[in-house]
Amino acid sequence: MSTSTATLMDGTALARRTVEETAARAAELTRRTGVTPCLATVLVGEDPASVTYVKMKQNRCAKAGIRSRHVELPAATTTEELVATIGALSADPEVHGILLQHPVGPHIDERAAFEAIAPEKDVDGVTMASFAAMGFGLPGFVSCTPGGIMRLLDAYEVGLTGKRAVVVGRSAILGKPAGLLLLGRDATVTYCHSRTTDLSSIVREADILVAAVGKPRFIKGEDIKPGAVVIDAGYNPGNVGDVDFAPAAERASLITPVPGGVGPMTIAVLLAQTVEAAERHVV
Amino acid sequence: MSTSTATLMDGTALARRTVEETAARAAELTRRTGVTPCLATVLVGEDPASVTYVKMKQNRCAKAGIRSRHVELPAATTTEELVATIGALSADPEVHGILLQHPVGPHIDERAAFEAIAPEKDVDGVTMASFAAMGFGLPGFVSCTPGGIMRLLDAYEVGLTGKRAVVVGRSAILGKPAGLLLLGRDATVTYCHSRTTDLSSIVREADILVAAVGKPRFIKGEDIKPGAVVIDAGYNPGNVGDVDFAPAAERASLITPVPGGVGPMTIAVLLAQTVEAAERHVV
Repeated sequence: MSTSTATLMDGTALARRTVEETAARAAELTRRTGVTPCLATVLVGEDPASVTYVKMKQNRCAKAGIRSRHVELPAATTTEELVATIGALSADPEVHGILLQHPVGPHIDERAAFEAIAPEKDVDGVTMASFAAMGFGLPGFVSCTPGGIMRLLDAYEVGLTGKRAVVVGRSAILGKPAGLLLLGRDATVTYCHSRTTDLSSIVREADILVAAVGKPRFIKGEDIKPGAVVIDAGYNPGNVGDVDFAPAAERASLITPVPGGVGPMTIAVLLAQTVEAAERHVV
Repeated sequence: MSTSTATLMDGTALARRTVEETAARAAELTRRTGVTPCLATVLVGEDPASVTYVKMKQNRCAKAGIRSRHVELPAATTTEELVATIGALSADPEVHGILLQHPVGPHIDERAAFEAIAPEKDVDGVTMASFAAMGFGLPGFVSCTPGGIMRLLDAYEVGLTGKRAVVVGRSAILGKPAGLLLLGRDATVTYCHSRTTDLSSIVREADILVAAVGKPRFIKGEDIKPGAVVIDAGYNPGNVGDVDFAPAAERASLITPVPGGVGPMTIAVLLAQTVEAAERHVV
């Protein structure tokens, strides 16, 4: 059996440091102004996974000195009702950040619901305004998972300028913004997806690979370029990522584990951006 | 001397057909409702090239049955004044489309000025809302040059699904949106730019190449993959594109000339989107 040569990118440890910094900022803001940052979480229906995610986010908020206000809506909620609820949170001066837990059910126009989030409260980075800001390199909140990926790359001092970055997946809140953020940092970015032909040969060119497809072990270890940095943003049943970890780790220089890589950073960015929103609101 | 084997993508002819269709739609709208589509053009300062461009756009409008309202502002106009002017046009029910001629001078916050254009009047496709709509595949106006490129590709029945598309250049209104539109049509898209290392080897992989860098003959003919479709969105002094045309045409299957390729399509899309904005406004 061969041995892993890659260094693990420890998202759990980096997330812990990030949350500690965030908690210190939240405490300082509260001490200085009396304002406690507040994240509103909106949950539609009772999908068990969504319930768990929201509860986890609320627990993390509490530990970081962030209040959370939870809004639960029945599964039968209409688009209009959801938009009105989120609009009210957007207008509420006591709420600094808004998270709409995805998915919201097929009868709801999710885009309309996302767009009801005021850009200055879009700490989850899901609105069109946030997407465009990422694309143009303008101030704004980033999508949390891509933002977590960039923090991981920076923490491990991965040079991006001129590097070949391959993003596998093109979702609106993961693949697409991840590519735009990497492009904004001067990487040469290729987007691959379900219609890509000859994926292997493209993955083999990647100095930096971001896997974001949601298919277990979809990326084969033999396709990893020796020395590549492998970011696995997939999280499939059984704690399995989108990359076939063991053989990939034999070739990569740096690789994120699943779990304990990208996942913890996603929530860390959510918390950090909530405190940032509160700071901007108070100033 | 070797012979060109590529078929020319005749942007002049396609633009003519597009403008004829647009003029018919404008006439029909006016006949049916009494409303004549109106494009407001905003020019800051007296840069000769900009003056010429705006005049050309106005002439094309007139031929297509589109009124144009021209606003000329002195070079010393402030960001606040420009934003106010554009805001008034955004609020004016008689104006259906707004074009701010680029560039506006270094003392002006061009992004703020663009963002004063109401999304439903952004017929030039320069706002963040339009960018995000292109990224998400949602209804909205596209940036005119990328939109023209897509129309050329469609007119010549270029299959995009699964094809390797390489976009050289990453500007906010050309390279970036062109890549997003190609990605939305299921191409595998690579963005190259000034920091890309080994550009040649990436260009050599392109089934579809979009050159949008503004450097004369920057793309070498020897780097064109045999049979590739070459879209030259560059326009440099002396009617020279970003692609070294003659040797590229020996290898490409389809290629846009400069001039007479992408350029005419840019204005055709502007006119088409202005009439579309008027149609939506009237409905």
